[in-house]
Amino acid sequence: MTTIGPTRRGMLAGVFGTALMPALPFGLGALVPAGARADALTSAATLAGREVPARLLPVPDTVSAALRPVFAAPPTPGWDRFPAGTDTAGWRALQRQTGAGPHPILAEIGERLGVSVTRAVLGGVPVFVSKPANMPPRNRDRVLMHLHGGGYVLFPGEIGAGEGMMMAGYGGFTVVSVDYRMAPDFPFPAALDDAASVWKALLAEHHPRRMAVFGTSAGGGLTLALMLKAKAEGFLMPAAIAPGSPWVDLAPRGDTLAANEFVDNVLVSIDGWVGTAGRLYAGTTSLDNPFLSPINGDFRGLPPAILTSGTRDLLLSDTVRAHRKLRQAGVEAALQVFEAQSHAQFLTPFVPETEEAFGEITAFFDRHLAV
Amino acid sequence: MTTIGPTRRGMLAGVFGTALMPALPFGLGALVPAGARADALTSAATLAGREVPARLLPVPDTVSAALRPVFAAPPTPGWDRFPAGTDTAGWRALQRQTGAGPHPILAEIGERLGVSVTRAVLGGVPVFVSKPANMPPRNRDRVLMHLHGGGYVLFPGEIGAGEGMMMAGYGGFTVVSVDYRMAPDFPFPAALDDAASVWKALLAEHHPRRMAVFGTSAGGGLTLALMLKAKAEGFLMPAAIAPGSPWVDLAPRGDTLAANEFVDNVLVSIDGWVGTAGRLYAGTTSLDNPFLSPINGDFRGLPPAILTSGTRDLLLSDTVRAHRKLRQAGVEAALQVFEAQSHAQFLTPFVPETEEAFGEITAFFDRHLAV
Repeated sequence: MTTIGPTRRGMLAGVFGTALMPALPFGLGALVPAGARADALTSAATLAGREVPARLLPVPDTVSAALRPVFAAPPTPGWDRFPAGTDTAGWRALQRQTGAGPHPILAEIGERLGVSVTRAVLGGVPVFVSKPANMPPRNRDRVLMHLHGGGYVLFPGEIGAGEGMMMAGYGGFTVVSVDYRMAPDFPFPAALDDAASVWKALLAEHHPRRMAVFGTSAGGGLTLALMLKAKAEGFLMPAAIAPGSPWVDLAPRGDTLAANEFVDNVLVSIDGWVGTAGRLYAGTTSLDNPFLSPINGDFRGLPPAILTSGTRDLLLSDTVRAHRKLRQAGVEAALQVFEAQSHAQFLTPFVPETEEAFGEITAFFDRHLAV
Repeated sequence: MTTIGPTRRGMLAGVFGTALMPALPFGLGALVPAGARADALTSAATLAGREVPARLLPVPDTVSAALRPVFAAPPTPGWDRFPAGTDTAGWRALQRQTGAGPHPILAEIGERLGVSVTRAVLGGVPVFVSKPANMPPRNRDRVLMHLHGGGYVLFPGEIGAGEGMMMAGYGGFTVVSVDYRMAPDFPFPAALDDAASVWKALLAEHHPRRMAVFGTSAGGGLTLALMLKAKAEGFLMPAAIAPGSPWVDLAPRGDTLAANEFVDNVLVSIDGWVGTAGRLYAGTTSLDNPFLSPINGDFRGLPPAILTSGTRDLLLSDTVRAHRKLRQAGVEAALQVFEAQSHAQFLTPFVPETEEAFGEITAFFDRHLAV
């Protein structure tokens, strides 16, 4: 919506040739003379990609007042300041820093959403169990398992349970958040193994039709990887899953890694900390391994899924590619994309859009889980 | 995925301050010290928006081979070459140009998808009726009404029926494409009145539970506007609708108008031809009028809807805002977003993604329409 000055217009016209036809009602190339298309495609510049000019991204007026400052904020401080991939001590220190309390936000979530949290160990893995003060009777025997985000490196301990607390509060469910082992000390498949251990322990006590698994970012990818592991090893899957902005392709691939670079103010760029964190987790395993990058797996037979993302999300492509692949595999899969949100901003506590996102996930789980 | 050189990193670090914390697992602001947040928000630069640097947008490798050249293509020639808003003769000429045949693409669609087209008049309005060679028995008594795109100015005549032909071919339905009157000679509400006239004529011959309405871009907005008109005037609505990349806010508003400017290679910018075309159609009516910008209407009671867009779509925000508003109103609404697609590129004939998009719409209609 930037005003195009004559110079900018002129430059683009110069680059792309003279007017032929405005945008088309269908089939982009339908009305453009074949000659013009062929000329454009044989140029090395076109095959290398297209240059997108610098632009001002205004603060959107199409979101709640509470979210406008969140979207107006500059890139998350630290997105581009991180240890080298070989600096194990540096990553350990950063990991500790992200886990170190106190965490006033967790106390606030607990108080405002009426959620209490207890520590436990399930399947030999530390977990946090969130329980809502008010639980609908239909949720009494239902349990959700939660896998936190943080690029498989960050947010150890209770801070990783924050999303689980919100699900407990907004949805009225019991939620078990897995404090899985992480890189650099415990690379792949430690996180997946821990998720599977907790899941199997839950299976021993609860019917899988009364359970769901969810998580965001790395936790969304891990949710899908766990389903692939269940298929491979023959243990039962839950009645539904909710991967949020799931990181499903660590290679990394996906058009919004480029299109939303610097548009997303959370991850900002795959060349920020997250790309290195993913490679730390992968260790010596190929980034294309489906248990690391579940987009490369076979999604047939996966449980009904609801996926959430935002229009500015660096991982919007990961999300929509996973959605399409689920649909191609015949899986019931719902997609919700929130206006102007960067990566995982549907988890911003106490704003209307977050309540709406959790409301949709709650309704989806309620429809698919047995009572 | 651009490589960040030291200079670029340094510049951003200089602008945004020193490292505090990597991106967060939930609640973007949760771990960022409140002081840092407040400082950022009080700067005039932040309130004005954020600068996004120039970037190279590579050709995506996550789409079908057939679509890669479509996405690699430079902005549609002519996107920024259009008559002034006062140049009525210029717009008439451009309109005629977009309608003038021959249209080999229509012959190709007809041949490859087995679709025949006949002209008719319904409710006093010219229409094109597309019929598939192979119609499933369950579709014998079903009829779809189609409203074409083109900013309420372009694509008069049979070229406007191309999307309807594809729906007939991919879905096996009878499709009635409305050749509605357009600006500059027939501004609002001519297009909506014509759509309503055809719809009422169809209602006289077919049960509304056996009908659906669909269209893309302006045709998607018009589809939603027609539903609002049905509510206001008390005529019956169809069993389902499929607004594709619907233009629901002519004001114009929506974050991807900025975020996807120059990323979208079809519309390219709202400051291209399409913004002026919309204002021509509106004439003296406020752009906020819900029959022009249905996002401002009351969506309660609307039929089940499936919406389609792409991650590079300039109108991705229009699409997801309409989806959220439908869901908020309690309407069953599905969303599908295709990797790396610009505006309306899910209508590119004969590529796998287009077959997939129409397949989803067909399944949705099949689920909701009576036999």
